[in-house]
Amino acid sequence: MSVPTSNRRTQALSLLERLEPSAPERVAQNLDEFHDDATEILLGFAFTDVVAREGISLHTREMLTIAMLAAMGTAPGQLEFHMRAALNTGVTREEIVEIVLQVAVYAGIPASMNAITAAKSAFTSV
Amino acid sequence: MSVPTSNRRTQALSLLERLEPSAPERVAQNLDEFHDDATEILLGFAFTDVVAREGISLHTREMLTIAMLAAMGTAPGQLEFHMRAALNTGVTREEIVEIVLQVAVYAGIPASMNAITAAKSAFTSV
Amino acid sequence: MSVPTSNRRTQALSLLERLEPSAPERVAQNLDEFHDDATEILLGFAFTDVVAREGISLHTREMLTIAMLAAMGTAPGQLEFHMRAALNTGVTREEIVEIVLQVAVYAGIPASMNAITAAKSAFTSV
Amino acid sequence: MSVPTSNRRTQALSLLERLEPSAPERVAQNLDEFHDDATEILLGFAFTDVVAREGISLHTREMLTIAMLAAMGTAPGQLEFHMRAALNTGVTREEIVEIVLQVAVYAGIPASMNAITAAKSAFTSV
Amino acid sequence: MSVPTSNRRTQALSLLERLEPSAPERVAQNLDEFHDDATEILLGFAFTDVVAREGISLHTREMLTIAMLAAMGTAPGQLEFHMRAALNTGVTREEIVEIVLQVAVYAGIPASMNAITAAKSAFTSV
Amino acid sequence: MSVPTSNRRTQALSLLERLEPSAPERVAQNLDEFHDDATEILLGFAFTDVVAREGISLHTREMLTIAMLAAMGTAPGQLEFHMRAALNTGVTREEIVEIVLQVAVYAGIPASMNAITAAKSAFTSV
Repeated sequence: MSVPTSNRRTQALSLLERLEPSAPERVAQNLDEFHDDATEILLGFAFTDVVAREGISLHTREMLTIAMLAAMGTAPGQLEFHMRAALNTGVTREEIVEIVLQVAVYAGIPASMNAITAAKSAFTSV
Repeated sequence: MSVPTSNRRTQALSLLERLEPSAPERVAQNLDEFHDDATEILLGFAFTDVVAREGISLHTREMLTIAMLAAMGTAPGQLEFHMRAALNTGVTREEIVEIVLQVAVYAGIPASMNAITAAKSAFTSV
Repeated sequence: MSVPTSNRRTQALSLLERLEPSAPERVAQNLDEFHDDATEILLGFAFTDVVAREGISLHTREMLTIAMLAAMGTAPGQLEFHMRAALNTGVTREEIVEIVLQVAVYAGIPASMNAITAAKSAFTSV
Repeated sequence: MSVPTSNRRTQALSLLERLEPSAPERVAQNLDEFHDDATEILLGFAFTDVVAREGISLHTREMLTIAMLAAMGTAPGQLEFHMRAALNTGVTREEIVEIVLQVAVYAGIPASMNAITAAKSAFTSV
Repeated sequence: MSVPTSNRRTQALSLLERLEPSAPERVAQNLDEFHDDATEILLGFAFTDVVAREGISLHTREMLTIAMLAAMGTAPGQLEFHMRAALNTGVTREEIVEIVLQVAVYAGIPASMNAITAAKSAFTSV
Repeated sequence: MSVPTSNRRTQALSLLERLEPSAPERVAQNLDEFHDDATEILLGFAFTDVVAREGISLHTREMLTIAMLAAMGTAPGQLEFHMRAALNTGVTREEIVEIVLQVAVYAGIPASMNAITAAKSAFTSV
């Protein structure tokens, strides 16, 4: 199931590229400046070990990710990134609207309002 | 778009029945004992206004709901209910496994471990 | 108890106007740009279904709202809005000070410090 | 403003007694078993330094406390304690119902449902 | 830096054994029943990739873990487990008392009170 | 154990100075503008009552603080302040890296990414 060490970083950045073509260079540089192991540990877990798995489509995984990030409300920059990533992986604007309304049910109106801000920004930029 | 007052409660309980056939009687009684308006206000918003909307299937909505509840980690009873509801609306065990692993990425290992407990309980009971 | 569809949006914006006279136009435009139903669903639930209810004064409701938003800490923009709304509905600065100190007890010093920032900004602008 | 060391514990337990007559003995014993300083540091801050302050009535403070605890959702036992304390300090059942509905607006339906459970338990026991 | 696939699970369970000698069998069985990959993905990330790293002692890492779990407040069972693990890795009761008091500063009195319950339970069982 | 009223503020600001030499003037002015009692109540509890206690070194306390603030994710400004304070009290960059990676385990990758942003900013400014 898992991936030989030497490929974990490469595969993680490859998955990240599907989320946003310009992201791998920017994100890897940011993490490499912090510590040599950060990209492999953090993105290797996130993308190589988990998000790249079969069983749910990447399209559905991005729907889940924006729902979770919006409900938690503690990572607004990453919520906006994943709003763009959702659009890039084929989630429609209508689906994002529905997710954002559903966030209001489970996490409250302010969480939903913050997600609307992130979604509108992504709608403009993608 | 929205629903005449007299039907909001009925439609909410009808949606809830699709999540778990035995739930409407139990949940409505619980809320009615608290206040006459609670079922319509809370379930009317959750189910009639939002979850019953088109644009995302109920199957996908339950996937989003368990992801959000697991990531927030503050409603373990409702997480277990929606694990069962997910199974009842056609989410597969494999999909639930993938959601639970993805929760670890965005909300941490303890949130994922709690979701595993809820999922295993639902797998046994449904 | 609840309100015919055609009036839910109007009543929600009317309540919002009591919180801040300039808010209805700005907030409704923001939500309308996102989706035609967003204002009615989100503000209809928040303001028409719940906040407009009798049983607690609007003054007390705003005290509760700033306490909750400060304790959760995930919607700083809305916390600042409701600090202004609290002042606009008759909550005194002394009461806001007491609420903010009480936030420290139940949600910790950083939550209280963030609420102080929001309160000071509202004190200047209202 | 603050209180000489020798009185901080006494005053904290005196305030706690107003919340629930049987609480001081139980809570102080629990904390004393943990560490000799715990009662004074934790309850001294909470009750002597903050909750005993003038500027908001104890009745209103308990309304704020149950709203915050319900919105955060991480201390169900203490939420139920403060539901009872709210009743003991003169908050009416109708006011608690309104607070619990307002929690749904700002923190979501699951938080409100958990608060209903706590409220119903308090309604039975007080 | 990272570990060949075939060893990740073994190394994770070996680290877990240092936290509590009886834990590997119980935890691995729990995760294996959920999905064949769960132990390696979740514990491999947690323990092999991160907690086993040098740079901070295991003793200090357990202090950090109980502080985080207590501050988040969403995994009471795991907080109690890590209270025991902290004692097992050489954290003293006095240090745990200090951590729990510091939790009150950053996350509020209820989070600290919940941590006291977990600590007292661990003090009894270890 | 605790401190006479007249000294609580002085001792709190003295501790704060050890975290960042320029902080006492800035923080006390900010709090004094809000309310005359805020510095003593909030910083007196945080620093005089708790953080100044023996039993854990200030160095270790700052490690705990950045772990908690990063895991909670609701006070990014204070997380960055305590990243600088950690460096000022002798926490090494390597230790901060390890804490930030451990945050990913217990609170998820987005919390860790936000902590990386705060850490990198502190690394530049201290």
